[in-house]
Amino acid sequence: MKIKMNASYTGMLMVLVALIVSACSTTERTASQSPMMIAEQGSFAVGGSTIQSEGEFDPIDLSTDGQTLHGDHAYVFYQVPVDKRSYPLVMWHGFGQFSKTWESTPDGREGYQNIFLRKDYGVYLIDQPRRGNAGKGTQPGTYTPIPDEQKWFNVFRVGQWPEYFTDVQFPTDNASLEQYFRQMTPDIGPIDVDVNADAVDALFDKIGEGILVTHSHSGGMGWQAAMQNPNIKAIVSYEPGSNFVFPPGEVPEPKPSSSGELTAKEVSLSEFNKLTTIPIVIYYGDNIPEEPSNMPGQDGWRVRLEMAYEWADAINRHGGDAQVVHLPKVGIYGNTHFPFSDLNNLEIAELMADWLSEKGLD
Amino acid sequence: MKIKMNASYTGMLMVLVALIVSACSTTERTASQSPMMIAEQGSFAVGGSTIQSEGEFDPIDLSTDGQTLHGDHAYVFYQVPVDKRSYPLVMWHGFGQFSKTWESTPDGREGYQNIFLRKDYGVYLIDQPRRGNAGKGTQPGTYTPIPDEQKWFNVFRVGQWPEYFTDVQFPTDNASLEQYFRQMTPDIGPIDVDVNADAVDALFDKIGEGILVTHSHSGGMGWQAAMQNPNIKAIVSYEPGSNFVFPPGEVPEPKPSSSGELTAKEVSLSEFNKLTTIPIVIYYGDNIPEEPSNMPGQDGWRVRLEMAYEWADAINRHGGDAQVVHLPKVGIYGNTHFPFSDLNNLEIAELMADWLSEKGLD
Repeated sequence: MKIKMNASYTGMLMVLVALIVSACSTTERTASQSPMMIAEQGSFAVGGSTIQSEGEFDPIDLSTDGQTLHGDHAYVFYQVPVDKRSYPLVMWHGFGQFSKTWESTPDGREGYQNIFLRKDYGVYLIDQPRRGNAGKGTQPGTYTPIPDEQKWFNVFRVGQWPEYFTDVQFPTDNASLEQYFRQMTPDIGPIDVDVNADAVDALFDKIGEGILVTHSHSGGMGWQAAMQNPNIKAIVSYEPGSNFVFPPGEVPEPKPSSSGELTAKEVSLSEFNKLTTIPIVIYYGDNIPEEPSNMPGQDGWRVRLEMAYEWADAINRHGGDAQVVHLPKVGIYGNTHFPFSDLNNLEIAELMADWLSEKGLD
Repeated sequence: MKIKMNASYTGMLMVLVALIVSACSTTERTASQSPMMIAEQGSFAVGGSTIQSEGEFDPIDLSTDGQTLHGDHAYVFYQVPVDKRSYPLVMWHGFGQFSKTWESTPDGREGYQNIFLRKDYGVYLIDQPRRGNAGKGTQPGTYTPIPDEQKWFNVFRVGQWPEYFTDVQFPTDNASLEQYFRQMTPDIGPIDVDVNADAVDALFDKIGEGILVTHSHSGGMGWQAAMQNPNIKAIVSYEPGSNFVFPPGEVPEPKPSSSGELTAKEVSLSEFNKLTTIPIVIYYGDNIPEEPSNMPGQDGWRVRLEMAYEWADAINRHGGDAQVVHLPKVGIYGNTHFPFSDLNNLEIAELMADWLSEKGLD
């Protein structure tokens, strides 16, 4: 186990960290100082459904009679640069997260939104139905403020609280950690995989062809959206977590781990085959145990990575083009569950840009 | 009562509307075709508090013991244009709304975010604590999907459902109405005026001097934030709805209306006087009844407008600079509760830009 520093000691190192961050951000700023030339930006709701109360609307008593509720849409903020490339990138957050995932990093550097705008891609950021700015759902929900941030510190492989992993690609100052904790937001109502995939399906109907970028929980929903909508021309998936789909007869056995059992999902061969028509790349970060571990925060990723390899094999066996990049295997170390916002996210973005280029998608 | 067309008939007019919108948006696009030059953009959480469970964190059982929850922050997305003006604009949504208020209009035109970026202002959009992307609060909350959109159609003075007001500055096609309904989002936990004002206070501590732009429910919370933070150098308030503050001995009697009683709030003279040191302008739209009406959707605005006039008088009596602009009184007709996204929002923005210029704030 690689362990570096105790989070409670980081106060002592704040001055040093501030100096380093300041030095880095100066370099950063110089490198990225040219303005972003935005031809168009805006937001809209897409997908969703409507419920309506019986009766007739009464403008005096204003009861629910005859009134409607539009909900279960996704909310989308988009920016299109001048001289845009053919395909925009649609970025879809993971569990407990929202569009912020792709915006400023916890330590205030540029995230994928800006990085890929600067690479001339149109960028669409999603809040999935019943999350963040798409909070208006058709189902009731309850929010209970349960302290759970140290759990996520572990599950997202920043370290083993209160220790950061050795050489982790995550800033170890307290202000960044606070921003990281505040970038989670609760669900408003139940997570519904079909509702979410349908909203993203509707988005691609609206905007036409593009590339889907998923993270964690949206990985599995992304396979589903791509099976539904041929406008999804490629998928880049960071650390997909669940709902790997296989055709009948090829579904792997459930994979036990100390964070629970990971099961795969069966879909018809004709549905599965749709995923063999587009290029797909999957990235996983560092500090995923190779052997079963009693640390559930990490161990879940061991079986997900295994499943991802088996899934890519199945796709390729059926004539598809799927690739799993386990970052430490290509010499990139220390990445957490959020490689796109980690300290080395410019390098991580370059990998993705190169892959897009290699596949003729840029 | 000025009434134009039945919303259920608008399907018949969709082709015509589509033609008009298409013609308009072509003009629009030509006028605004120069790209937005963004020097910097990003997002962050600001303000808020933390709760912590007793005990020690256990990485195996992952119970809540020893874990934290950071909540009650505001979420802020900001953009700073090249050649920015001295003061950025901080835009704060109203009741049931979120930052979307200032983004694309229901019919997809540019809202205040883009309009003022193009006028070289830095623009900060807030989601207040427990709303939208700032959904992670410290208090529990329950969401019940109650059909109430026809009520809001009336309260926001688009018309009297299903009729639009005559010459209302709102698009009458169904797609725009659907976007309008979907731009509301529920609270996650109770609305807490102090928590909200504190978060905006913290924002101005972080960014320094700027101008606060409020809408409806944030109007009253905006007065409070300005009393807390001298970095707020001016306020532009669209249709403020509640929490008008007066010094002891000058608090008006409650104002009855068919939507309930509007009360003012007493604050100390020294607090009140802080609002006399900055320029303030308040705008109200059209279709506010002059005499008491049995239509609660409209009648509430009659007493709010009255209260706003009395409030501006009080501010000016104490040496301040507050102005109420009732748009129909200056020859601008048909505006709803959302003048900044209405069909004539470029004209409405020009009024605001002229006011900022007049006050030397540009």
